[in-house]
Amino acid sequence: MTHETGRLYGLGIGPGDPELLTLKAYRILRSVPVIAYPTMENGKVLARAIVADFLRPEQIEVPMPLPFSPVRSSQPYYDIAAEKLAEHLSAGRDVAVLCEGEPFLYGSFMYLFNRLSSKFQTEVVPGISSTMASAAALGVPLTYRNDVLSIMPATLEADILRDRLAVADAAVIIKLGRHFSKVRDVLSELGLLSRSLYIERATMPNQRIVPIADIDAADVPYWALIMIPSLQTSVT
Amino acid sequence: MTHETGRLYGLGIGPGDPELLTLKAYRILRSVPVIAYPTMENGKVLARAIVADFLRPEQIEVPMPLPFSPVRSSQPYYDIAAEKLAEHLSAGRDVAVLCEGEPFLYGSFMYLFNRLSSKFQTEVVPGISSTMASAAALGVPLTYRNDVLSIMPATLEADILRDRLAVADAAVIIKLGRHFSKVRDVLSELGLLSRSLYIERATMPNQRIVPIADIDAADVPYWALIMIPSLQTSVT
Repeated sequence: MTHETGRLYGLGIGPGDPELLTLKAYRILRSVPVIAYPTMENGKVLARAIVADFLRPEQIEVPMPLPFSPVRSSQPYYDIAAEKLAEHLSAGRDVAVLCEGEPFLYGSFMYLFNRLSSKFQTEVVPGISSTMASAAALGVPLTYRNDVLSIMPATLEADILRDRLAVADAAVIIKLGRHFSKVRDVLSELGLLSRSLYIERATMPNQRIVPIADIDAADVPYWALIMIPSLQTSVT
Repeated sequence: MTHETGRLYGLGIGPGDPELLTLKAYRILRSVPVIAYPTMENGKVLARAIVADFLRPEQIEVPMPLPFSPVRSSQPYYDIAAEKLAEHLSAGRDVAVLCEGEPFLYGSFMYLFNRLSSKFQTEVVPGISSTMASAAALGVPLTYRNDVLSIMPATLEADILRDRLAVADAAVIIKLGRHFSKVRDVLSELGLLSRSLYIERATMPNQRIVPIADIDAADVPYWALIMIPSLQTSVT
């Protein structure tokens, strides 16, 4: 007996507010038999929490233990997760992997995609990235007309951050965490501090918007970013 | 007699597929008494077409004639549109302005926002940007870990495009239209053509994905973009 294999979905579920799921992500989330999501070493299961109210009791849940931030050494974790998903897919069950924000923008889904998409039908459903949600939450337009927007992780070395920020019309620096002081120093050097806006956990219940001058560097979470909106903001 | 003024929404409705509206945008779209949308000089009413099936007959529609691409000379159009919206808002009616993609990313909503947000309660609902939807449609991850992503309009001069692309790990060049040949020449010079992916009207019924070598420069629409995904795509 042969049967069709299941379909793999990389489901963008947005930055935190459950209402920022798309209609498409919601439909797929409600209809697939298997839901997979990362569980971090630090005990956080953020992706599942975002959609908790939408899950149905008969759905099979597949927690995937993953290290907090993807690095080379994390690849064995993805091997194990991919094997788990492949079992369900081979048995003909569709699997939706919950992806915070947008799956193909700095997402860990890519490591599963690279392992499974050649073997199983795979579809990525785009999601609202936290960078976009942050502009809305801050109430500040990000880019106009001819602007170049650069998105970069705070993990970069100071001199690379400096070079990239120097030529951007607008920028978003993501994953601040313990890199905050380094980023603040670079922004100060470039004279960009007064244009910089800080936000933590955009659209989540504990969203926090604070002037950069008031921030304790020891207290900056991974889910914090700095946005430098276009100078053209003053155009009317 | 006094009454409360209405609330202004900049409603991100995504790149074209009506199912890529968020649950929040859908709820607001269905509940506000007034829906406003740009009507372009070239007769296209794209934003309204995306949500046409969701509109209710009792909703008041406010078409806003706007020039196709925002330039300085387009400002009087925004003055007129803002006045129309202000009448409804002053009368206590909530108004949702339909915004293709993400309102605060190269959107024309910003010009209304800058005119109205100081006078009326204003909320931006983030939407799926075409840049994100294109990565999903092309089935290629855009950025990994430490990548710098640059998003830039094809309208930039060749030397600026060249400088910005030279230092980006991944890039999206939007609004190609009649600028396609210039962009292709720059990509060729930088040795980036083989990494470049072309897509028109991502997620719309007439979406088109074509190898760059096969493209007729005379036939490239405004709603076309080139994506240069991260080289790390090969990481597994």
